[in-house]
Amino acid sequence: MRKVAFWVVAIAAVAGVLASTVPASGPADEEAVPIFGIKIPPGYRDWKLISVAHEEGNLNDIRAILGNDVAIKAYREGKLPFPEGTVIARIAWDYVPSEENNKVFGRAQSFVPGPAPDWYLQFMVKDSKKYAATGGWGYAQFNKDGKPADEAKLKTCFPCHEPIKARDFVFTRYAP
Amino acid sequence: MRKVAFWVVAIAAVAGVLASTVPASGPADEEAVPIFGIKIPPGYRDWKLISVAHEEGNLNDIRAILGNDVAIKAYREGKLPFPEGTVIARIAWDYVPSEENNKVFGRAQSFVPGPAPDWYLQFMVKDSKKYAATGGWGYAQFNKDGKPADEAKLKTCFPCHEPIKARDFVFTRYAP
Repeated sequence: MRKVAFWVVAIAAVAGVLASTVPASGPADEEAVPIFGIKIPPGYRDWKLISVAHEEGNLNDIRAILGNDVAIKAYREGKLPFPEGTVIARIAWDYVPSEENNKVFGRAQSFVPGPAPDWYLQFMVKDSKKYAATGGWGYAQFNKDGKPADEAKLKTCFPCHEPIKARDFVFTRYAP
Repeated sequence: MRKVAFWVVAIAAVAGVLASTVPASGPADEEAVPIFGIKIPPGYRDWKLISVAHEEGNLNDIRAILGNDVAIKAYREGKLPFPEGTVIARIAWDYVPSEENNKVFGRAQSFVPGPAPDWYLQFMVKDSKKYAATGGWGYAQFNKDGKPADEAKLKTCFPCHEPIKARDFVFTRYAP
């Protein structure tokens, strides 16, 4: 029993060290969002870059848009509509000035990612049959703890994407 | 000979189609920068995301910072100094309002990548022996045509990075 207790402590210690490093994939993918039933796709933080953006106003965030291999291939080939299995990830961080960068530059010019806002992670998942009612896309949003947005919030996704039907409901263009 | 001519035309046609799609890796890696002798690393556009940023003032760009596998591993483990073989890529685009996004949102709030500025691509390459005189890092800059920056420009890199010696001369922090 002593030996077992030692290993429990040792494993817990190692787990603690691991937990202190930056995770590769953000929050755990435990809970699915309502309506669309989407969980956080494992490994999304390793996906390739589609583009970046800054949103002013109430959002006031800076964001990266990543895509799984299906998404990246379609973007690079200029293929529309996006094929089945496309997943687009949008990571947002609060838009904050970098005091340490500005100190070096000698002027206030540098803005970088700060803490995660409530809309930290969003995903669009292409499944034409399953999501036929919303243009063939399922929508998901999670905060930094991996907690899904509620049903009322998720109902606002498609109406906002609907006007850009000509680009298969996807705002982001590929940044070369 | 007619058959050969047919194939020359056919291959040229296919090459034309391929050339019209977005390249996976930006400009060709033909020329090396002066001083540091660095070429554009093949496949850098497929690397994983470190962070994003916006620079105001004369730069007025929006940028993505990507890393090769050595860089990403070191960042996620919080390891300093960065190991030999680390390569950090910085891609910059002109910072422009997205009229099409703003039209949907009903207000001017969205800023996205525009054309590539002269400082489109920058790379930091860790080689402690080769680049001992500049903190163990080699520096490179290329415009959108793959043309390297000149010697005078490259001489300005290290003096700007020197104040952040405590973070191994790297400005960018990892965005989780």
